[in-house]
Amino acid sequence: MKQEPYLLTPGPLTTSASVKEAMLRDWGSWDSDFNEITKEVCQRLLMIANAKASHVCVPIQGSGTFAVEAVFATLLESTSKTLVLMNGAYGQRAAKILQRMGHAYVTLDKGDYLPPLPHEVEGLLIDDPAITHVVLIHCETSSGILNPLEGIAQVVAEQGRQFIVDSMSAFGALPVDATQLPFTALVSSANKCLEGVPGFGFALIDKQALSGCEARSPSVSLDLYDQWQYMEKTGQWRFTPPTHVVAAFHQALNEYSEEGGQAARLARYTRNRDRLVSGMRALGFATLLDDEWLSPIITTFIAPTDPAFRFVDFYQLIKAQGFLIYPGKLTEVDSFRIGCIGQLFEAEMDQVLLAVASACQTMGVKLDTPHPSPKTE
Amino acid sequence: MKQEPYLLTPGPLTTSASVKEAMLRDWGSWDSDFNEITKEVCQRLLMIANAKASHVCVPIQGSGTFAVEAVFATLLESTSKTLVLMNGAYGQRAAKILQRMGHAYVTLDKGDYLPPLPHEVEGLLIDDPAITHVVLIHCETSSGILNPLEGIAQVVAEQGRQFIVDSMSAFGALPVDATQLPFTALVSSANKCLEGVPGFGFALIDKQALSGCEARSPSVSLDLYDQWQYMEKTGQWRFTPPTHVVAAFHQALNEYSEEGGQAARLARYTRNRDRLVSGMRALGFATLLDDEWLSPIITTFIAPTDPAFRFVDFYQLIKAQGFLIYPGKLTEVDSFRIGCIGQLFEAEMDQVLLAVASACQTMGVKLDTPHPSPKTE
Repeated sequence: MKQEPYLLTPGPLTTSASVKEAMLRDWGSWDSDFNEITKEVCQRLLMIANAKASHVCVPIQGSGTFAVEAVFATLLESTSKTLVLMNGAYGQRAAKILQRMGHAYVTLDKGDYLPPLPHEVEGLLIDDPAITHVVLIHCETSSGILNPLEGIAQVVAEQGRQFIVDSMSAFGALPVDATQLPFTALVSSANKCLEGVPGFGFALIDKQALSGCEARSPSVSLDLYDQWQYMEKTGQWRFTPPTHVVAAFHQALNEYSEEGGQAARLARYTRNRDRLVSGMRALGFATLLDDEWLSPIITTFIAPTDPAFRFVDFYQLIKAQGFLIYPGKLTEVDSFRIGCIGQLFEAEMDQVLLAVASACQTMGVKLDTPHPSPKTE
Repeated sequence: MKQEPYLLTPGPLTTSASVKEAMLRDWGSWDSDFNEITKEVCQRLLMIANAKASHVCVPIQGSGTFAVEAVFATLLESTSKTLVLMNGAYGQRAAKILQRMGHAYVTLDKGDYLPPLPHEVEGLLIDDPAITHVVLIHCETSSGILNPLEGIAQVVAEQGRQFIVDSMSAFGALPVDATQLPFTALVSSANKCLEGVPGFGFALIDKQALSGCEARSPSVSLDLYDQWQYMEKTGQWRFTPPTHVVAAFHQALNEYSEEGGQAARLARYTRNRDRLVSGMRALGFATLLDDEWLSPIITTFIAPTDPAFRFVDFYQLIKAQGFLIYPGKLTEVDSFRIGCIGQLFEAEMDQVLLAVASACQTMGVKLDTPHPSPKTE
């Protein structure tokens, strides 16, 4: 096999060789050896969020979206009304899930890249006492924006509503402390900042809230109450888990600890992001977002205005140099995205910058004057 | 790592080293290289069922149960009424899924191990014209019974109803030919007779039937119409696929062809089953089922009546010799199960028999007089 490309995407991402090698064994999904792995994984995820006293960890098969839908299916009632804070594709998807399930919801739609602000959320909650739940996308990878989690969590708690956080692409890198940050459920998946391979997601759910959710889910597969109870009783997943993926994630959590946990991972991703952003700006690319809202997960760059720039060619030229970047997902602006999570370090970011420069040269793209470096450096 | 045990279970099962090694690479789920793998996998699955002209293949993240629920969610309407043919845990689960979704259904419950018979199904359909769909478990691994698929498919078609087959543990080994066997949807998963690792399932769905199902699913995650349409347009899965698991399955399908496809795999599993059953009967164990209904997938043996037999000890003693067997799943009879699918050959079945004999000796279990050999030999 030729050298595989680095994935500069918001996940699936480049994982370590040792994480992948953990998949070189078949596990009996019923056997105690495998149950031990599941148990350890759940305990460590709770520890990362300092949530052992208050929350339970319930893993669920499928992609991250399955885990988000499972939280809605399990927690919401026919009397629930949800406020979805939207500024990109994942907020829109959350609303679509609620719509299909037949749940009442309202949205605060900030468009492509503006953050929902705590005082806006507070106003909406005061105006509509029927709202029972609020959903926020922690890092909206459509633009790469890091939304103001703490401030919104605070106003939701003050207003006595339940808070559901889709922290898919942020959990493990951005700090979350359940003793400080009030949330009912936080959702993430194996193949993001914890650097496992894709195949399951998980939710950290307030134990008291989940305890009241028996037989509420209209879906058997996505019922996190049942999954939790069955796991408590038997140590097993209710239905066949992706055993190899779970074993890889267990190894990924070992490596996460060895690296130094959340603080160290955030520091590495931040270094990657700063190297990338300052390098791209020096080449003449502009970021979509102001520095204040740039996440250390993925960055959106505005496509050059030169008609010689065609993303399809740009993508292939960079791929030929060993890197997969990500297309844009904005409705109004031509853009592309470059991620900085996964097994990537400053050396790889430097190579990406060389690949970008070389691709532009090959295409004959003239770039604008260099942009100033980010304030984050 | 010590030598891993063989899995004598109905999946996850023992896979080849080369299938697992196919997971040693990270794939961009958006990239054309991965889309090509998905496309090939779907085309080959249709070919196995000779269904290219009539059906489409829609893979779905999660366990096999997710795929079964996805078929129900996608195909059924509020006016649907489903007849579930039950003789074990998987038929019961199908009914539970329908009940939670709020769909009308009736059951033909044959208890633990008797097959639903075509004339019984015919009678029920004639008596109740409101029934729109019939669900059958092809091989019900609770007992290991191989249900009479062809005869039931025939009467369901004659009565003009839609037929949904849960062929989870049988597809790939038992023959299915869509040009001869009328079915609306057939569901299976990666980690059964096609010998991949767990992480996704798939459905072969009649193209005309699926075409009318837009926006019918109450679940976004489990909407197979959307998954199909998105894949047709983009070549991609809608939400992050378990990329490594899909790559492993692609390799598993290569090895399936190399072995000689369905006929060769059925022949190997049948040899394994015959070796196992005759050996176990020679030791004094009785099978739950008559030879006529024994599947080449998994066999249920009645637990010895000697009080010295305790399954927990039996399991551990056999595990210590390198084999994981499976507990029973019957409501009325103490039993255990031994599977014969996966990368297992007659040599492994002989070793299992030695391990069983040795475990009985260690426990001091007295077995009954040897039972006669199966007629299938």
